[in-house]
Amino acid sequence: MEVKRKGSLLSFRPDIKVLDATLRDGGLCNNFEFTDDFARALYRMNVAAGVDYMEMGYKASKAMFDPSKFGKYKFCDEEDIRKIVGDNDTDMKLAVMADVGRTDFKKDIGPKKDSAVDMVRVACYINEIPRAIEMIEYCAAMGYETCANVMAVSKAKDEEIADALDMLGQSPVDVIYLVDSYGSLYPEQVAKLTLIYLEAGEKYKKAIGVHAHNNQQLAFGNTIEAASWGASYLDMTVNGIGRGAGNCSSELLLGFLKNPKFRLEPVLQFIADYMLPLRKAGVVWGYDIPYLLTGRLNMHPSSAIAFIREKREDYAAFNGELLEKD
Amino acid sequence: MEVKRKGSLLSFRPDIKVLDATLRDGGLCNNFEFTDDFARALYRMNVAAGVDYMEMGYKASKAMFDPSKFGKYKFCDEEDIRKIVGDNDTDMKLAVMADVGRTDFKKDIGPKKDSAVDMVRVACYINEIPRAIEMIEYCAAMGYETCANVMAVSKAKDEEIADALDMLGQSPVDVIYLVDSYGSLYPEQVAKLTLIYLEAGEKYKKAIGVHAHNNQQLAFGNTIEAASWGASYLDMTVNGIGRGAGNCSSELLLGFLKNPKFRLEPVLQFIADYMLPLRKAGVVWGYDIPYLLTGRLNMHPSSAIAFIREKREDYAAFNGELLEKD
Repeated sequence: MEVKRKGSLLSFRPDIKVLDATLRDGGLCNNFEFTDDFARALYRMNVAAGVDYMEMGYKASKAMFDPSKFGKYKFCDEEDIRKIVGDNDTDMKLAVMADVGRTDFKKDIGPKKDSAVDMVRVACYINEIPRAIEMIEYCAAMGYETCANVMAVSKAKDEEIADALDMLGQSPVDVIYLVDSYGSLYPEQVAKLTLIYLEAGEKYKKAIGVHAHNNQQLAFGNTIEAASWGASYLDMTVNGIGRGAGNCSSELLLGFLKNPKFRLEPVLQFIADYMLPLRKAGVVWGYDIPYLLTGRLNMHPSSAIAFIREKREDYAAFNGELLEKD
Repeated sequence: MEVKRKGSLLSFRPDIKVLDATLRDGGLCNNFEFTDDFARALYRMNVAAGVDYMEMGYKASKAMFDPSKFGKYKFCDEEDIRKIVGDNDTDMKLAVMADVGRTDFKKDIGPKKDSAVDMVRVACYINEIPRAIEMIEYCAAMGYETCANVMAVSKAKDEEIADALDMLGQSPVDVIYLVDSYGSLYPEQVAKLTLIYLEAGEKYKKAIGVHAHNNQQLAFGNTIEAASWGASYLDMTVNGIGRGAGNCSSELLLGFLKNPKFRLEPVLQFIADYMLPLRKAGVVWGYDIPYLLTGRLNMHPSSAIAFIREKREDYAAFNGELLEKD
């Protein structure tokens, strides 16, 4: 290959943006029931740490999900966001995630001029790209920056990925994300996929992002692997909180990136003040054997989450069950 | 660079050997106080899992370390090893580690023909290479396979590394290890160093090994990065047990390697039966914020270990202390 890594380990790339997904992916660990105090402290911390985007949660349909059964970051009503960020008079932008098929986007996403939100991240599986593009076009017309987070790409065939990138390339989307939903990709695979995404990104003038999971303790390694080839939107969560094995840890990523605008200390303080109490209160996330087992088999982590919830420890039997399903 | 990765993700490389360092590096977490039951079960598990080498512990000097204050795997007396492995009538080889300056090697290491041990791994800092070579020559003459584990290579200059590799190249050593003692190396650096080691390895007909630490959640990622370029001796420990942030986890590595002789199930069973009880009994290891902080600053983990032992949680203050010392 003629391609080269972008930048060196000592330089910094001004194109790199980090996105904190703590409330959104972390919300999958506690039913989105973060206190206002937690969310406000996280917001202030992210601003202090030089974070580029903070994802406030999902824009889920209240017709499909009962608001009495989830915390408010599942829905991200404008007034709830304003309660945390005011007019967000900072350099940090705000994002929300909207799942294809789980969002009443025409009802719940109004014009950007009336919202504190800057970016809508549309999440879809690869067979839902046309529906994602409909949402992206709508959100772009409403004045938002947009991302396409194509999930579970480890399950997709090369041809499907090429098609998806072409379709998204011709849409108004700003950023196309490589998403390793199952935490199954190894760095060599991430490098190859990143280069495929970047090729489409160059052709269509789109930025490329990466969202990794930690099933095989590779979330951080895969994130910096993708970044080293040119991915520029990097997702992270404080202490790696996120569904199952969690995500790339903010403290690892900000401890690595060399742009002097990033500050590690606020993250460290926030971990001591807010993440340790969250763990002590019983919220569970992070690398554990069952997630490794679903990750290496390129399977959805749901059965691993159930295994841990049931407090089972018979890993070998669980692996046998997975191999039956595989 | 003209160099290519060796093998593909789906193929397997018959040159790859895995070494279980659970009793040795893990012993640093519990003062080497493993029960005979634990050691025997680990031995049987490693055999069942297709592990190539099992490291039984250190050959520490009893003049320097009081045997009443450490478990027996700090000393690895022949009779204690035999109690676990009998005559080791298996395909798995046994290793011990001997630290330069902490071993009475002429007294404590006898002829191979009288020992169940197959390999002596000599650990040294880069300025101790001549002393390491003295031990390597002695052990080779006694009939053992030998390794040189040059620790803390992240602190060494390129010129020192080149010198060290030349000196070791001309010694009888069989394997030269790239050791990231502080868990500070990123995969790109591991790749570059591995290629430097491999160049010397080809010149002098030595195999290259890798021993990684998990301070930045990169132990597994760095291990497979080094392997992908051609490193062939890969250290691991069950559940990643090892000093501070621990090592590359056996379950991750054996879950990744494609050689059909490796079996994951025995490792999973052993984790449930022996590693979970070890954690419940209060033995502490694995990724934690203080280790990240020493790792990214390329510092010895001792202050992080003390921080955790003191049950401190003021990470930001600790980081400030480290920056003062740096």
